[in-house]
Amino acid sequence: MDFYIQHNDTNLYYATKFRTTDLAFYITGKLNVLIVPDMEKDRALRESEVEVRSFGELGYHELRKEMDSKKAQAEMLIRFLKSHGAKVVGIPENFPAYLALQLLNNFDVKITNPFKKMRAIKSFEEIGYIKDTSRAVISAFEFALKVLKRERSCDRIKERIENYLYLKGYIAKDTIVSSGKVSAIPHGSGGTVEDHVVIDIFPKSKRHHYYSDFTRTVILRKNEKIEEMLKVVVEAQEKAISMIREGVRAKDVHDTVCDVIESYGYKTLRQKAKEGFIHSTGHGVGLEVHEEPRIFENETILKSGMVFTVEPGLYYKEVGGVRVEDVVVVKRKGCEILTEYPKFVRCGK
Amino acid sequence: MDFYIQHNDTNLYYATKFRTTDLAFYITGKLNVLIVPDMEKDRALRESEVEVRSFGELGYHELRKEMDSKKAQAEMLIRFLKSHGAKVVGIPENFPAYLALQLLNNFDVKITNPFKKMRAIKSFEEIGYIKDTSRAVISAFEFALKVLKRERSCDRIKERIENYLYLKGYIAKDTIVSSGKVSAIPHGSGGTVEDHVVIDIFPKSKRHHYYSDFTRTVILRKNEKIEEMLKVVVEAQEKAISMIREGVRAKDVHDTVCDVIESYGYKTLRQKAKEGFIHSTGHGVGLEVHEEPRIFENETILKSGMVFTVEPGLYYKEVGGVRVEDVVVVKRKGCEILTEYPKFVRCGK
Repeated sequence: MDFYIQHNDTNLYYATKFRTTDLAFYITGKLNVLIVPDMEKDRALRESEVEVRSFGELGYHELRKEMDSKKAQAEMLIRFLKSHGAKVVGIPENFPAYLALQLLNNFDVKITNPFKKMRAIKSFEEIGYIKDTSRAVISAFEFALKVLKRERSCDRIKERIENYLYLKGYIAKDTIVSSGKVSAIPHGSGGTVEDHVVIDIFPKSKRHHYYSDFTRTVILRKNEKIEEMLKVVVEAQEKAISMIREGVRAKDVHDTVCDVIESYGYKTLRQKAKEGFIHSTGHGVGLEVHEEPRIFENETILKSGMVFTVEPGLYYKEVGGVRVEDVVVVKRKGCEILTEYPKFVRCGK
Repeated sequence: MDFYIQHNDTNLYYATKFRTTDLAFYITGKLNVLIVPDMEKDRALRESEVEVRSFGELGYHELRKEMDSKKAQAEMLIRFLKSHGAKVVGIPENFPAYLALQLLNNFDVKITNPFKKMRAIKSFEEIGYIKDTSRAVISAFEFALKVLKRERSCDRIKERIENYLYLKGYIAKDTIVSSGKVSAIPHGSGGTVEDHVVIDIFPKSKRHHYYSDFTRTVILRKNEKIEEMLKVVVEAQEKAISMIREGVRAKDVHDTVCDVIESYGYKTLRQKAKEGFIHSTGHGVGLEVHEEPRIFENETILKSGMVFTVEPGLYYKEVGGVRVEDVVVVKRKGCEILTEYPKFVRCGK
């Protein structure tokens, strides 16, 4: 691909270090140019290391006199690409349709994403950022344990966790705090604290924008069924983590989780179960909370520097759910856990 | 348009009252169906009033065996639309390209957006939500005035405002707190507090998700030039607000602002000025902080229930900038200000 256009999303930030809520484009391949509204050019020059051109410099305002803003944006890109001899143009999957359809009239358009694979492997600096957010998430979890001593409302615990993180410089949304039968829904949150609570926190830093993702199942009162499920899930997670290293297939990590879970008579998605372990083993974590690599039935070969979650769970409508989740970084001869914390957590009243 | 597909964004929430961070589609026109991942169906049925179908019910899992997830999503939509006799299909401007290009192979695809105009006119309930966020923004501004008595760092004041709002249940991002020459950049924020501070806060509610948007220029120490500019901007804003009512053109509101500003010898964008009043007069506010209607050089006729900002400003590199901004709702015989607050604000040390 000689020319690839990225619109403003986490890929643009990843590639250029320029962040904006406005429209912006980054063209890479034969070119290496960040295109920003006139008002943003100075800031883009300061923050980014790539060449910067403004909409005005690419003739946007003249085009705007003859057509609406959306058409003018498309035409600006088309003229610029043509002036550099572009014939085939790559765009990401989520590129806005109004631009994609205009490009299609002028170029051979291919949907592709050169950043997806790049972003799956984290640099030393990126791992440092994810470590930083991981420390924050552990500290928020410890705060939650204190709150749990007197608070019975899962919604209120969620709010306290998110407030705590916000004041420390991290934004957590959709934090899961679930108990009883609500916890049988992997993304379920709310209700009243019963025998156990699943707490799943995935904040990102307001400063460097990298996520972490962490889950523990806290036991408050004896519940044999839940405690047995938790033991199985922890064993599955630990066995999976112990095999993670460069060169291993994602599928083998997922299969290890399923093998352990099935060996105790619980069902998995591999057996097309509707209850039991009914989701994937993990997902990459970085500038997005869900990114490459996926740890599921895929053939992806793990590489050093990949950062992802390992998060087996068991879910039964009549009993509730349990899950344990850590973020790991793949190394040549193993992996490092970025969210190191005991797996069995009890909280006395 | 017999069939229109909306992917998951604020339009989908607006139309269905269902909120998710996952992939979801809403097809309207001849159909009225919300399409969600299997795991989300129960919640969608509870929260939404439209018909709900799951990916599984539309054959997604069978398709998934033969192709990757993106292709399977497209094929699921294509088969469903074809089974209802679709020939022409509408999609919004920002519809993801990977789906748009697949639709294009099967239908006559039109870029359109039936929600844009609908959303410009707010219901009684929506106005109540924007009023609620407006009350929060005024209270955050009053809090900022207290912080301003001892804090010199604009970044720190911004952080305190955002923390204050977060704990009250509102999320403010990119809050502008600027002083001195930094304030000459309309979106500039940061630096040290000098003679005056521009505070522009646009939070949304975590509960109902509606925004408000409010700016005041606070005078801390005598600065004749800044105070004169502020007087002009307030006069322009008040004159513009006094003419807002159903039936007036957006352009006339903008022109009124420009007329007042130019009458004092300041320059405007209408005169192609690079300094002076260099942005539009306002923008709609609702589920997004920038939406329809635009108050600029456009012919849009104001209608009862439209909610938008009126926010003239003046910006000079060597002096700094001032701006005053309120949110108004258009009525049959005038307008109501939702962010009622004195225009001239002084803060003694």
